[in-house]
Amino acid sequence: MDELIRVENELNQAISAGDLLQASRLLDELNPREVTEVIERSPRAKAAVTYRLLSKSRALEVFEMLDPAVQGDLVHALRDDEVTGLFSELDPDDRAQLVDELPASVAQRLMLGLSAKDRAITTAILGYRSGSVGRRMSPEYVHAHPWYTAARTLDDVRAKAADAETIYTIPVTNDVKRLVGIVSLREVLASDPDATIGELMSEPEYALATDSAEEAARTCADHEYLALPIVDSETRLLGILTVDDAHQILRDAEAEDVARAGGSEPLRRPYLSTSIFSIARSRVVWLLVLAVSALLTVQVLEIFEATLEQKVVLALFIPLLTGTGGNTGSQAATTITRALAVGDVRTSDVWLVLLREVRVGTMLGLLLGSLGFVLAALVYDVPTGAVIGLTLLCVCAMAATVGGAMPLLAKTIHVDPAVFSTPFITTFCDATGLLIYFTIAKAILQI
Amino acid sequence: MDELIRVENELNQAISAGDLLQASRLLDELNPREVTEVIERSPRAKAAVTYRLLSKSRALEVFEMLDPAVQGDLVHALRDDEVTGLFSELDPDDRAQLVDELPASVAQRLMLGLSAKDRAITTAILGYRSGSVGRRMSPEYVHAHPWYTAARTLDDVRAKAADAETIYTIPVTNDVKRLVGIVSLREVLASDPDATIGELMSEPEYALATDSAEEAARTCADHEYLALPIVDSETRLLGILTVDDAHQILRDAEAEDVARAGGSEPLRRPYLSTSIFSIARSRVVWLLVLAVSALLTVQVLEIFEATLEQKVVLALFIPLLTGTGGNTGSQAATTITRALAVGDVRTSDVWLVLLREVRVGTMLGLLLGSLGFVLAALVYDVPTGAVIGLTLLCVCAMAATVGGAMPLLAKTIHVDPAVFSTPFITTFCDATGLLIYFTIAKAILQI
Repeated sequence: MDELIRVENELNQAISAGDLLQASRLLDELNPREVTEVIERSPRAKAAVTYRLLSKSRALEVFEMLDPAVQGDLVHALRDDEVTGLFSELDPDDRAQLVDELPASVAQRLMLGLSAKDRAITTAILGYRSGSVGRRMSPEYVHAHPWYTAARTLDDVRAKAADAETIYTIPVTNDVKRLVGIVSLREVLASDPDATIGELMSEPEYALATDSAEEAARTCADHEYLALPIVDSETRLLGILTVDDAHQILRDAEAEDVARAGGSEPLRRPYLSTSIFSIARSRVVWLLVLAVSALLTVQVLEIFEATLEQKVVLALFIPLLTGTGGNTGSQAATTITRALAVGDVRTSDVWLVLLREVRVGTMLGLLLGSLGFVLAALVYDVPTGAVIGLTLLCVCAMAATVGGAMPLLAKTIHVDPAVFSTPFITTFCDATGLLIYFTIAKAILQI
Repeated sequence: MDELIRVENELNQAISAGDLLQASRLLDELNPREVTEVIERSPRAKAAVTYRLLSKSRALEVFEMLDPAVQGDLVHALRDDEVTGLFSELDPDDRAQLVDELPASVAQRLMLGLSAKDRAITTAILGYRSGSVGRRMSPEYVHAHPWYTAARTLDDVRAKAADAETIYTIPVTNDVKRLVGIVSLREVLASDPDATIGELMSEPEYALATDSAEEAARTCADHEYLALPIVDSETRLLGILTVDDAHQILRDAEAEDVARAGGSEPLRRPYLSTSIFSIARSRVVWLLVLAVSALLTVQVLEIFEATLEQKVVLALFIPLLTGTGGNTGSQAATTITRALAVGDVRTSDVWLVLLREVRVGTMLGLLLGSLGFVLAALVYDVPTGAVIGLTLLCVCAMAATVGGAMPLLAKTIHVDPAVFSTPFITTFCDATGLLIYFTIAKAILQI
C-alpha cells in the first residue's frame, strides 16, 4: 500500500511535469488492478493521459476493470479506432453498462462498429429496462440437454471453456429451449461418464429477465449459486447471471441504501474522480427537502411562542429532546430497512413489527426518562424534571414506532424504504417531539 | 411468496393447536430454503418444534443454511445424539462459527464427539482470533503442484469433487507447501492434457490467516476469484476462502456499518427471532452516549440564555438550523465512510478530502443560506434574515468539513469509521451549530 502511494505520487509529478517516459516507466511497476485504482482516483483529464501510457495488451485488461462511469470518460478522450476496438472486446453485459454512460449518438456509432452477432446480443440486453436482470445477464453460457451424457457435456464445456462467462454452473434445457434443470460442473466431474444429465440435474431456481436485478441477485446469493439462469415468460433460457455480477448488483444496492440513509444520492463513480459540483448535486435535493420539512418545526414552535416567552428555560432542552427522538427513530428505521432488505421481515408483518417497536421504544424511554427526570430535577426543579422525563418516555416510544413503521409503509406503496430512512424520520420526529414536549410542559407547569 | 405466507400462517396455527401431523404435512410443501426462512422468523420455542418435525435428511440441509445464532438455539433444544450428528456433518468453518455461539462447556462436549481429524481441523480454525480470515477459511481444498500435468490435476479434481469446498480454483504449491501459483479449473479444462500446471498457473493473490476477514474478503471479491488462498507467515498454504463466504463476510460488515450509521449495534440474528430485550440492548448504549453528548447542547444554550430571553424568536429556528447542520454532516460522513470502505479514498488523502468538502459545504451553504435569508427576511425582518442566512452558510461549510474529516480521523486512530457516523456527527454539529448561530445573532442583532 505504501509502495503504491509512493509510485502514485511520483506518477502524478511526472505527468504534471510532462515527463511521460518516466510516467510510463512508473506505470510498468504497477499491476493492472493497481493501475485501475490510480486511474479511478484521478481527475478526468489526468485519467486519460495515464490510460494512454499503457501498452495495448494491458490497456484492455485495465479498461474492463474500470468503473463504467470512468470508462465513459475515457471513451470521450480516446481516438475512434481505439474505442471501437475496446468496445468490441468487452463482455456483452459490461458493454450494455457502458452504453448507459454514453450519449446516444456515441453509443449508436459504437454499436455500428460491432459484428452483427455482437450487435444482436447487445441490443437484446439493452431491450430490457434499466434495473432489470435482463440488462445484467450474460448470453454466453454453456448449456446441456437431459439426454446428454456426463462425458459429452464435459466435452462441450472444454470446447467453450475459453469463451463462456462461466462453465461451472450448467443450465439444462429441453428441445424447445425451456429450462428444465441445473447441474454443476462438479457433479458432472464426480459422476460416471455414462450417466445422463437428466439423472444428475436438480430442480432449477431462476429469474425472469424482467425481474428486478436486485431480487435476482439476492436469489443467486442466497442459494450460493455460481450462476442463476435467466428465462423469458415461457421459461425459455435467455442467459445467466454470474455470481460476481450478482454480488456487484447487491453491493451497488447496498451503497445506494447507505447513501440514502445518510440523506444523499449515491455517487455514480469513485469519490476522487467526481467533480465538486456533482458531489454537491448528489446532496442538494435531499438537503432542500429536509430543510423545507424542517420548516414544520418552526411552525410548531411558533404555536408555543407564548409558552417559551414565559419559560425560556424550556428552549435549552429542545436539541436534546428532538435529537434523542431522531436517534431512536433512526435506529428503528435502520433495523427494519435492513430486515426488509434481507427478507427477515415482510410488509405483511407490519402489526408484529409495530407491537415489537412500541415495546422496545417504551423500554428505552423508561430508562432514558428516569435518567432525565433525576438529572433535571437535581439541576433545575422537580416539575422541570417531570416534564423532561415524561417527554423522553413519550418521544422514544413514538419515535421507535414511527421509525419501525416508515420502511414498511414505504415498501407497501412501492417506494425504496431507504428513502424514508434516517434524515426523513429525524425531521418528522423533531416536529412531533416538539408537539409532545410543549403539550406536556403546558400541562405540568400549567402555563 | 403469498403461497409461503399462507403455509406459514397455517403452520403456526397447527403448531399452536398442537396438531403436529398437520404441521408436518404443511412443512413438506416447503423447500429447505423456505423452511429455513420460517424457522428464522419464529421465536425460539416454536423454532425448535418446527425443526423437530423435519425428516432426518432434510433436517441436516436446513440446519446448514440456518443463521449460526439460530443453530445455537437449536443445539440447546435438541437431544445430545442429534446434536453430535449434526455437528460432525457441518463444514469445518461453519462448525467454528457455531462454536462461537455456544457456551464453552457445550462446545467442548461437542468437540469431543468429533473424529480426531475433524477435531484437529476445527481446533486449528478456532486457533485464529475471531474476525481473522483464518477463522473463516476452509481447509478442504484441491491443490496441485507445478510439475503436475493438466490431465493428472483433472483426475485429482474428479476424485475430490464430492468433498472439497470448491474445485474451481486450484492453489499451486511447491514441495515444501509454499504457495507458488493459482490456476482455475477452466484453464485446466481448456488446455492440452499434457501441459504442466507450471505453464498454466498465474501469480497468486492471497491473504495471511491472521489478516482481517473483511480485508481478505474484499481482495477475493475485487479480483472476482471463486476462492482466495490463505497462507501462514511463510506463505505455506493453510486453506481457502470461498467466494460465498467472502460475500457473506462483506454483507455482514456492511450490515454492521449500516446499523452503526443508524446509531445501533447490528443484531446478531434475524429480527423476528430476536427478543425485545436484545433489540433494546443493541440500541441503548448508543442512545445513552448520544443523549449524554447532547447535554453539550444544553450547556451551549445556557451560555446564551440571556440572549434567548431578549429575543425568544431565535428559539424557533434552533431545530431547523441544527437539523440542517446534522444532515450536511451526515451526508459527508456517509460518502467518505463508503469511499474508505471500498478503497476509493485513503487516510493519506485527508487534505484532499477536506479541501473538497469545504468547497462542497460552502456551495450547499450559499444555496441554502440565500433561500433562508430571503424567506426569513420576508416573514420576519432583514436582520433576522441575515442571521439565518449567514448561519446556514457557516453551518453547512463547517458540517461538511467535520463530517468528511471524522471517518478519516477514526480510521487513522484505528476506530471503525462507521462509529463516528451519522448520529455522532449530528450531535457534534448540533452543539457547534448553536455556537455559530448565537455568535452571529449577537453580532448582527447587537444583543
